[in-house]
Amino acid sequence: MILETLPSRLLLGPGPSNAPDAVLEAMRRPLVGHLDPHFLALLDRLKEGLRTLFGTTNAMTLPLSATGSAGMEACLVNLLEAGDPVVVGVNGVFGGRMAEVARRAGARVTTVEADWGRPLDASQMDDVISRVRPRVVAFVHAETSTGVCQPVEEIASAARAAGAMVVLDCVTSLAGRPVELDAWGIDAAYSGSQKCLSCSPGLSPVSVSDRAIEHVRERRTPVQSWFLDLGLLAGYYAGAQRVYHHTAPISAIYGLAAGVDRVLEEGLEPRFERHRQASSRLVQGLEALGFEPLVEAAHRLPMLTSVRLPERVERLGEAVVRGRLLEDFGIEVGAGLGPLAGEIWRIGLMGENARPEVVDRLLEALHAVLD
Amino acid sequence: MILETLPSRLLLGPGPSNAPDAVLEAMRRPLVGHLDPHFLALLDRLKEGLRTLFGTTNAMTLPLSATGSAGMEACLVNLLEAGDPVVVGVNGVFGGRMAEVARRAGARVTTVEADWGRPLDASQMDDVISRVRPRVVAFVHAETSTGVCQPVEEIASAARAAGAMVVLDCVTSLAGRPVELDAWGIDAAYSGSQKCLSCSPGLSPVSVSDRAIEHVRERRTPVQSWFLDLGLLAGYYAGAQRVYHHTAPISAIYGLAAGVDRVLEEGLEPRFERHRQASSRLVQGLEALGFEPLVEAAHRLPMLTSVRLPERVERLGEAVVRGRLLEDFGIEVGAGLGPLAGEIWRIGLMGENARPEVVDRLLEALHAVLD
Repeated sequence: MILETLPSRLLLGPGPSNAPDAVLEAMRRPLVGHLDPHFLALLDRLKEGLRTLFGTTNAMTLPLSATGSAGMEACLVNLLEAGDPVVVGVNGVFGGRMAEVARRAGARVTTVEADWGRPLDASQMDDVISRVRPRVVAFVHAETSTGVCQPVEEIASAARAAGAMVVLDCVTSLAGRPVELDAWGIDAAYSGSQKCLSCSPGLSPVSVSDRAIEHVRERRTPVQSWFLDLGLLAGYYAGAQRVYHHTAPISAIYGLAAGVDRVLEEGLEPRFERHRQASSRLVQGLEALGFEPLVEAAHRLPMLTSVRLPERVERLGEAVVRGRLLEDFGIEVGAGLGPLAGEIWRIGLMGENARPEVVDRLLEALHAVLD
Repeated sequence: MILETLPSRLLLGPGPSNAPDAVLEAMRRPLVGHLDPHFLALLDRLKEGLRTLFGTTNAMTLPLSATGSAGMEACLVNLLEAGDPVVVGVNGVFGGRMAEVARRAGARVTTVEADWGRPLDASQMDDVISRVRPRVVAFVHAETSTGVCQPVEEIASAARAAGAMVVLDCVTSLAGRPVELDAWGIDAAYSGSQKCLSCSPGLSPVSVSDRAIEHVRERRTPVQSWFLDLGLLAGYYAGAQRVYHHTAPISAIYGLAAGVDRVLEEGLEPRFERHRQASSRLVQGLEALGFEPLVEAAHRLPMLTSVRLPERVERLGEAVVRGRLLEDFGIEVGAGLGPLAGEIWRIGLMGENARPEVVDRLLEALHAVLD
């Protein structure tokens, strides 16, 4: 079967990153039932670990049974009702996706745009928030399409001052740089298992504040999605009685539990530092090859580096060079998205891959292809 | 960590069933990217395998990146728009869930009810369909909450004669008894990975007819769910260009691919026969112990047997007996849901577990607990 001929890959795109053996071994374990007391104990421990990563005490912190995009949709469709005003910061694909998801929930969306590769302007966000008085303010902490790290606190505090709830996309930031939901005053955040957590894709760690859960309880209309309804999910994930809602993805949760354990064993600060160091080694090496960082140093993500391409790459064709990295060296790097397609590469050093020897393997391969 | 102390379980509830080593080993394989040509080839092969299981040539046949309930929601929210009339057959939890999901999509829902444990009355469905002229008729093939197998053809043909699209829940039936979407004229169907496919929970095989995809294209309003929008999903799963939508759950798809390969190696007819034989052995053994099948023989599912409890079980307390089976014998059986909670057990012999030695292990444990 095709499975047996799958090649070995070093995954340096925007995710998935490579999963360590501990995570893969965990997914190999035999199944138990989703209502088995042993499984529920594992789930409780995982939830506690996720709270530590998110910097929160939110009771409603759980591994949602689908990818980060479903986590985004869960946060938005629970907090918004038809006609609600919402302000969304858009400086890349994922801010744009938030706006689209909110529109499909019937919200009245006002976007605040910034150039792709630049952070949102906090004072511009503040102005619009003061004017619109939205129910929800949503933006992206680590924009995976551009590699921009967004300062959170000023926007979040303006939003709360205006009485809005704040939704933050932490898909690429969680476990790779500090996330402090409680200190920042975030009401709902979501991430993905396949980025700095170095687990397989398919789960979205989600955390929602008590205040936001209160708002969900007071909705005038049911949440449009049954599958993502936080009130129903709470029955299984947070209730004393553990009521069946859907069948939790057992093996994926085993993997995530092993991955979160590994993060906590390493410690968050050492892990963040490892990401910072790998990133600066990468940028230095890429600049020597003629690549130019898209994002200015102050707003650059450590786990995802976006670079404009040198002439040598453009002459060969950027897709051709990526294809040679993949086929000849087993290394995957990410293409640009949207207006940056063909213009940039996105190179991830996420979780397990944020290591100097990984950086060097990529740089050597690039030298071999380009020299 | 807790993972290492998870007990060994024989999973004879309503799902998950036990996954064979081939499936577990597949999930242990290192990750490749979701846009890697090797992964896309694996996905193509898996889609072809799912078509065989569903009895269809539908191009849009794919492993949706979430559980069966999300598959249900995907089928309904894509085919329905606000105000659309829909007829839903309800004779258990999952028919009720279909009605609820359709309501949350803004549809005008007419339910046709039957007692839990009885099939829907086809002529009653036909009458309501003729009267309501719905856009969609939805019902459950194998009702997991009761163990009833619903005859499909008469209702499906009445629906099509009335110009309606037909949505069929095949969560528990797929790969355990015949499913023939094309012969039956079904427009959208969904299943789950953790039942007769004996894979880990977390994926929902979904198949949608070309005719239904045409209806989705002609919608007046966007699909309310971005994550489940079949038009967007087609870009990744069926497009020539394989456009990124969300990150596919790599390891879960490895597992499902191995599981589907295994089903096809065994052959569908021998697999169905194995389910029938295991089921009749089980019913015989349970009747000898004083359990009574809830469902009359003609409408009984082979992979899920629901039984009323003998006095001995009620005297001990049904939850106590299930607890002893779990703790002393490592065997999970399922409780009743809704109005049947406390009244019945649901015993699954799904996929790998549909074997005489599994039946005997359960019967011996029951003798030990009850004698």
